Amino acid sequence: MELNNFFNPQSVAIIGASSNKNKVGFALLTNLLKSGQRAIYPVNVNSQELAGLKSYPTVTDIPNKIDLAVIAVRADIVPQILVECGAKKITSVIIISSGFKEAGESGQELEAKIARAAREYGIALLGPNCLGVIDSQTDFNASFAAQKPPKGKIAFLSQSGALGTAILDLAITHNIGFSKFISLGNEAQLTEIEFLEYLAHDQDTEAILIYLEKLSNGPEFMRLCAEITKTKPVVVLRAGRSDRGLKAAMSHTGSLAPADSVFAAACRQTGVITVESIREFFNLAKLFQLGIKRPLQRLVILTNGGGPSVVTADLVDLSQSLSLVEFSTETKEALRKVLPPMAAVGNPVDIIGDALASRYADALKIICAEKETDGIILILTPQMMTEVEATAKLVAEFSQQKPILPIFIGGPTVEPGLVYFKQNNLVNFTFPKDAVEALDNLARGIKKQETITNTDNPLVPPSSLIMMNFTGVSKILKDYEINLTGILVKEKTELAGALSKLGVAPFVLKAISPDIIHKTDTGAIKLNLKNIEEVERAWDEIIANNPHAKLEGMFLQPMAVGKEVIIGMKRDPIFGPTILFGWGGIFTEVLKDTTLRIAPVSKEIALEMIREIKGAKILTGVRGEKAVDEEALADLMVKVSKLAIDHPEIKELDLNPVIITPAGIKVADIRIMV
Amino acid sequence: MELNNFFNPQSVAIIGASSNKNKVGFALLTNLLKSGQRAIYPVNVNSQELAGLKSYPTVTDIPNKIDLAVIAVRADIVPQILVECGAKKITSVIIISSGFKEAGESGQELEAKIARAAREYGIALLGPNCLGVIDSQTDFNASFAAQKPPKGKIAFLSQSGALGTAILDLAITHNIGFSKFISLGNEAQLTEIEFLEYLAHDQDTEAILIYLEKLSNGPEFMRLCAEITKTKPVVVLRAGRSDRGLKAAMSHTGSLAPADSVFAAACRQTGVITVESIREFFNLAKLFQLGIKRPLQRLVILTNGGGPSVVTADLVDLSQSLSLVEFSTETKEALRKVLPPMAAVGNPVDIIGDALASRYADALKIICAEKETDGIILILTPQMMTEVEATAKLVAEFSQQKPILPIFIGGPTVEPGLVYFKQNNLVNFTFPKDAVEALDNLARGIKKQETITNTDNPLVPPSSLIMMNFTGVSKILKDYEINLTGILVKEKTELAGALSKLGVAPFVLKAISPDIIHKTDTGAIKLNLKNIEEVERAWDEIIANNPHAKLEGMFLQPMAVGKEVIIGMKRDPIFGPTILFGWGGIFTEVLKDTTLRIAPVSKEIALEMIREIKGAKILTGVRGEKAVDEEALADLMVKVSKLAIDHPEIKELDLNPVIITPAGIKVADIRIMV
Repeated sequence: MELNNFFNPQSVAIIGASSNKNKVGFALLTNLLKSGQRAIYPVNVNSQELAGLKSYPTVTDIPNKIDLAVIAVRADIVPQILVECGAKKITSVIIISSGFKEAGESGQELEAKIARAAREYGIALLGPNCLGVIDSQTDFNASFAAQKPPKGKIAFLSQSGALGTAILDLAITHNIGFSKFISLGNEAQLTEIEFLEYLAHDQDTEAILIYLEKLSNGPEFMRLCAEITKTKPVVVLRAGRSDRGLKAAMSHTGSLAPADSVFAAACRQTGVITVESIREFFNLAKLFQLGIKRPLQRLVILTNGGGPSVVTADLVDLSQSLSLVEFSTETKEALRKVLPPMAAVGNPVDIIGDALASRYADALKIICAEKETDGIILILTPQMMTEVEATAKLVAEFSQQKPILPIFIGGPTVEPGLVYFKQNNLVNFTFPKDAVEALDNLARGIKKQETITNTDNPLVPPSSLIMMNFTGVSKILKDYEINLTGILVKEKTELAGALSKLGVAPFVLKAISPDIIHKTDTGAIKLNLKNIEEVERAWDEIIANNPHAKLEGMFLQPMAVGKEVIIGMKRDPIFGPTILFGWGGIFTEVLKDTTLRIAPVSKEIALEMIREIKGAKILTGVRGEKAVDEEALADLMVKVSKLAIDHPEIKELDLNPVIITPAGIKVADIRIMV
Repeated sequence: MELNNFFNPQSVAIIGASSNKNKVGFALLTNLLKSGQRAIYPVNVNSQELAGLKSYPTVTDIPNKIDLAVIAVRADIVPQILVECGAKKITSVIIISSGFKEAGESGQELEAKIARAAREYGIALLGPNCLGVIDSQTDFNASFAAQKPPKGKIAFLSQSGALGTAILDLAITHNIGFSKFISLGNEAQLTEIEFLEYLAHDQDTEAILIYLEKLSNGPEFMRLCAEITKTKPVVVLRAGRSDRGLKAAMSHTGSLAPADSVFAAACRQTGVITVESIREFFNLAKLFQLGIKRPLQRLVILTNGGGPSVVTADLVDLSQSLSLVEFSTETKEALRKVLPPMAAVGNPVDIIGDALASRYADALKIICAEKETDGIILILTPQMMTEVEATAKLVAEFSQQKPILPIFIGGPTVEPGLVYFKQNNLVNFTFPKDAVEALDNLARGIKKQETITNTDNPLVPPSSLIMMNFTGVSKILKDYEINLTGILVKEKTELAGALSKLGVAPFVLKAISPDIIHKTDTGAIKLNLKNIEEVERAWDEIIANNPHAKLEGMFLQPMAVGKEVIIGMKRDPIFGPTILFGWGGIFTEVLKDTTLRIAPVSKEIALEMIREIKGAKILTGVRGEKAVDEEALADLMVKVSKLAIDHPEIKELDLNPVIITPAGIKVADIRIMV
């Protein structure tokens, strides 16, 4: 869909333009009139003139071609206005007005109506219930935001208008520049997907921030992000991760939100950085403002204060993906030559409290020449003799050689430095943690991108689940060569025969019934049975324990002993099938040590999943224990992944436990829900 | 020790006073002269007059009584100056000068010299290498900080001068008031302990912040903090937690730092809040500035913007100790009556974008009357019609009824609100996470305080470890009624007799040798031996596997099967014996699911430890499994704790694994290091 007209239209009609300063239509008109050389046409049935311009009663009265219409009238008359836009052959429309899906049932109907009208007239529609659009590069502002953010290279897509105004306003204070801001509103038609696609090719945009409560198309989102993150970092602030957050999000959008763990997996597989707070979101924007878009992991701390540098060294050393460079003897010697005897020439480099700017410069010259160093965290604390502004100038100067993250910690005394940064398109991090966290988020998000991902995952609407019967399960197992050792026994009298077929004791006997999901809880499984007498007694006990369950029979298995893992599949309504791996048996629920991916899972990814759970070392062998057959485990995961894509009717599948024995891995139980 | 003279002296000598603006002696004199009505005596051998005051060649030349001397001269002449202070009967001295312990060997000697001189003359000595002292309540400033922080109720003890200047300066911008600031420097004599003791009874201090790299006395720190945290929150920013951080800290203090896990346990046992970043430290100070010193856990979010409130709801809901209040039907009804139809009356209460201050007021009236609510997070985003300053006034007004944490998110547009807060001794949180994290830190730190703690833990200097022989171990086990089932066998020929004594198979055979610490690694333990032949073969194999180990014999045990836990004891040089509990066997190292306390451990604390490891549910019984005998496990931990206090010669002790069997808990192995 052609979206250029949202960002650089030559002629704009503002329908609902107003001269009343308390009306959105006034703010919109005011902002549009400041938007460079464009033809702006106010439309208001009650005015002849607005802001010195001729005002038209309807959009169809405008004699010229209109590239974009911005609508800010009462919700109930919006459908009629859209029809008029259609008649006027306007193909791009922003609906600012609220009172649609977010306002309950009658609003939902109105929203369906405008979506239909847009489709009918071939209109690209943004909104309703949105703040509008700002393009700093084309100097275009079709929003009612009070302030325009500085010009820059970051695009910001927001599913919350309020968050948009807050961040754009804060960006002014902290000097973060934006290329485009798009308030997505209710997404009656255009969604984050179309705008992401547009931003992928937008030359003014070098990094993308998204505030996301809902997602319209998981596979498409993944396909796009996998492509974009190759050249531009994408950060998602995901809201509605908790029960209460989700409830709050539903109340103001009423849309489907992806499950948090699934969304996290999708982001990780496509190199998208996810954050949990506006603070992290904003600090990543600061990184981008400094031009840092690829991970800097090997860091040097340069400081004039001991305490803050110790804290910062802790944060870097204990981070997930960052480290402090170990200096070579030459570097240390070079530093020792230019620094006073009390300075510390390790890393952190502590040039101590009486450092003037020249001492920072002496150290920077040497550190910038250090090949192992990706970036420098420069800490300044306000001491009596500290030259704040001169040091800020050094940050600007040496940033040409090596990325520098300045952390000037203080208030009025460091203010001249912050002013200098602002004048030179740089930013300051208030606290060491702000900078370290941002670098860690960048490195963690981007390094995790994996080989990509089918986008044709079948999406199946959620529905109630029933358990697949044993015949169906057996067929699936056979088709995918998944081996579940054991014999289905329909009558107690057949037990002895089955027993002799299986051979060596001990055995396990378990009920097969669509009514029994948790066999342990209901006494529908008996372990460690040594002979036919015990097996037969177990048969009777299981029936006694589950008097009302409809049995397909019982499954008799040799008992395997070993470590237990789970391989699970669950179909997500937004992303399609997901594959889970983790500790099985009772450990699954208690340790919650699991990992998840969106299918398809390749063998490479499966191996990565096996190695990344917290208890991975136990699987891969500790203290001379034999390692698990990872290959076989990974093959099994790949089979489950394939099965999930081939069979959209299967909603959930658990191999639990899969038992790791010295003889190999054994699937001890399977459950399939359709 | 009497410390009043550091905070409110009537007469002060400043030795090394200077008229050179680049000298510390100038800044000190300037600050002292602004310190209310006090007699200030400059001392400088080269000046007759300084800042319009008569200057004395030495302190002994001053005709009047001196309450406090502040020394800012070259390190090498400080010892002589101290002698003069002694001669002049000055009992309180601050040494600002650097060039002591932090400057290497000759500095260390100088520092020992001044410590001796102070002791000899009965001088209370702060420093050297410190920034000085500020008391906002008495209007006294004996520091060379460029700015004085606002007056307030928070005391700040810092082992870093640079961190001190940075935070005091930043406090001006954010309007955080301090009662006292004490820069501890090298702590040649006075340490954090003496000042904590002073602050415990200081009526001007309602909360205490400590930046801590080193600790002089663990048990005393615990005794004091346990007492103080009953009435005043104590926050510790602990630096040197990581390898690199510790190295950096050592390089600028050269002092002993407590192990991080041990220090964390000590803080938790005494209700001290620990934080890892200056940012958290500062945001807790903001809470205290708002007068919030006890946990607020049941929260209401009031907002004019959907997105930020969803993010905040997530943060609260996913926090460790906070929750969102569920409103009663009455409260919801009351809110519905005063709010527009599109508003959300759940929690978050979203009064939507067009809210004027009056709508905030309407909602606040109702929420403040809500009994279940501890506090309110009030979010403001700058919308077109938002009344920023009027809403700030409401925060001040309604804070009288219920604690309110304002989060005005934005830049220039919200500035009038921030200015209003500043004028009214309130603060703003920049981001929701800042407020939520601070509340969570406060609640987590304070709720965890446990019954206190012996302070007489014997502190033993670190030394090399040797393994206690089996005779010693046996005696300890007997004395404390710890049961290790099995028989020590010295010759292979005794195996058969031992076997028949123990009874049913299978058995375990393990080497007893001071040379073998990890038996599994060296093949010095054989499991699951079924009969005398297998046991004898195991004997030979163990000897073959460990040809160079000096054996005391082998230990033959019945093999217990069950879940494995560890009970460990390690003697910390700063805090004394610590008790560890967690998953045993190979899980100890891989899952790292352990918890730690400083001894003594009461039965109550032992039970809490058992219940707080991540896998606790596995111990306490999942899915109808039998629960562990927690009482017996706790008793065993109490025995280890007692043993550790009684036997200072024991440096480390591990019961690993302790096996949980249906018949009870069994200690399967013990290792004691002396």
